[in-house]
Amino acid sequence: MGEFDLIKRFFTRPTTRAALGVGDDCALLVPQPGMQLAISSDMLVEGRHFFPDVNPRTLGHKALAVNLSDLAACGARPLAFTLALALPAADEAWLAPFSQGLLAMADTHGCELIGGDTTRGPLNICITVFGEVAPGQALLRSGACAGDDIYVSGNLGEARLALEHRLGHLRLDDATLTRCAARMDSPNPRIALGLALRGIATSAADISDGLLGDLGHILERSGTGATLNTALAGELMPNAPASLVSTLSFVLSGGDDYELVFTASPGSRAAVEDAAQKSGTAVARIGVIDAAPGLRLRDAGGALVPNTYTSFDHFAP
Amino acid sequence: MGEFDLIKRFFTRPTTRAALGVGDDCALLVPQPGMQLAISSDMLVEGRHFFPDVNPRTLGHKALAVNLSDLAACGARPLAFTLALALPAADEAWLAPFSQGLLAMADTHGCELIGGDTTRGPLNICITVFGEVAPGQALLRSGACAGDDIYVSGNLGEARLALEHRLGHLRLDDATLTRCAARMDSPNPRIALGLALRGIATSAADISDGLLGDLGHILERSGTGATLNTALAGELMPNAPASLVSTLSFVLSGGDDYELVFTASPGSRAAVEDAAQKSGTAVARIGVIDAAPGLRLRDAGGALVPNTYTSFDHFAP
Repeated sequence: MGEFDLIKRFFTRPTTRAALGVGDDCALLVPQPGMQLAISSDMLVEGRHFFPDVNPRTLGHKALAVNLSDLAACGARPLAFTLALALPAADEAWLAPFSQGLLAMADTHGCELIGGDTTRGPLNICITVFGEVAPGQALLRSGACAGDDIYVSGNLGEARLALEHRLGHLRLDDATLTRCAARMDSPNPRIALGLALRGIATSAADISDGLLGDLGHILERSGTGATLNTALAGELMPNAPASLVSTLSFVLSGGDDYELVFTASPGSRAAVEDAAQKSGTAVARIGVIDAAPGLRLRDAGGALVPNTYTSFDHFAP
Repeated sequence: MGEFDLIKRFFTRPTTRAALGVGDDCALLVPQPGMQLAISSDMLVEGRHFFPDVNPRTLGHKALAVNLSDLAACGARPLAFTLALALPAADEAWLAPFSQGLLAMADTHGCELIGGDTTRGPLNICITVFGEVAPGQALLRSGACAGDDIYVSGNLGEARLALEHRLGHLRLDDATLTRCAARMDSPNPRIALGLALRGIATSAADISDGLLGDLGHILERSGTGATLNTALAGELMPNAPASLVSTLSFVLSGGDDYELVFTASPGSRAAVEDAAQKSGTAVARIGVIDAAPGLRLRDAGGALVPNTYTSFDHFAP
């Protein structure tokens, strides 16, 4: 199977929204009049973002899901994506399930594959995703204001639990492992929540490197600080194994969560609740934006908790 | 140097056309009203597309140039690009010249860096490029008609000559090597020619895998065949070393040329000449589109020449 057969067999489908899809020098996309195009690119590398023995179907799902998660954080509606793929070999037994997982996720969110590239090389998946958002409606990292509430969607920390199990650093029972592995392998981007939060959230980011790190981006871009309530660790990780020493570290620094962290003014609490209901996504209020820079942790009684937690950095020493 | 310092130091500049650049979950691009967005993605892998000892500055140049070449083939005007980068380490001595070469090429074509991703991994550069083109103006691979002339811009084969020298398969003198290495390392995308050919060319593709392969894409998408005049090998490779056994094989199957192959009706010869002059790009008329499928080679006397040439395929056995 050559390069062009491979593209035809596994990655070419008729397009419905793009003016031109796979098979020419460029794809042609026609945004609706007046809409902005939200664009994000993520690269997944074997050994960094997934294990060599990962199920190719779930890998296809995840590769697109982590990109869609960026659109969700922007409040953008998915339109299309390109796929650039370096493969050690043109292995049909790998390509068939990979493309199935990828295209099923694409169908779920109405996001069509319009082009890309394939080459031989160490396994590397680079997806660039395109969404639409009306001018002024995009959720940015830069809009948080002192006094805003801080929210997180869903649960945090379970993907990291699965990772630590896989690395042999802790031991999960079978039921917990199954649940946590699904979080690690098959994240579901919070597209519906992102869309519902337009006009309500003052800022948003998706949580890929851990809550602290991604909230940190909001604080930096907004020129603010924050105080988080550590008592909420239990709410964000309700099914933590009893043996876990620090639920808080998994909640704050887990990574690979693909939930949204966002802010909204206290006057918008009912609207946030409504957006959560409308999108079928649980959200928890976990803290408040401060004018003073820095991130503080306080327990239920209001006492400061030392913040010794970090977020993921691909080039940290 | 961590991941986010790296992005700030080497890859963050103010944007002038994008509504939002590097630093949020998504970039925001605002196409001009009524324009289509031409999108292309190319992935460059160490050992496949460049040697491990490549000059990082020329690699930065080339990584964007090969993407811009796809916009040129579409007749699209460059707007912006994303960069996803897997690096073995955050090496400033590599990153500084790489980003300089990349951003110099970006400035040459008014194409701004609006986002991307960085991760640790085997060196891999994935760029997705965005250009603008008016509806119906994009040059497609599918528009060639029987009777159309076939043209190629510039010269072909010299990048492949440099590659063969580097691989030790042949030996170039110093002056020839310098010229050919520049073609391999620092291709210049034919943006001006692509723009000038809108409304004139009936089809176009850029030549990355060799003339035969890329013209083959036009023939396949257009449902046509072609006859090429092999006597034109001398014109397309005017400075071929006298020792070279088959200039023709380098012209037809060289690869890495980043010239344009395009078609236009015989009635447009003056317009093609004018577009070539306006864009400062030499073009040569090398053959004709046939209704009968397949690609035929004929010598200056009109006799059929056996076609034993192939094009590059990353997954060919």
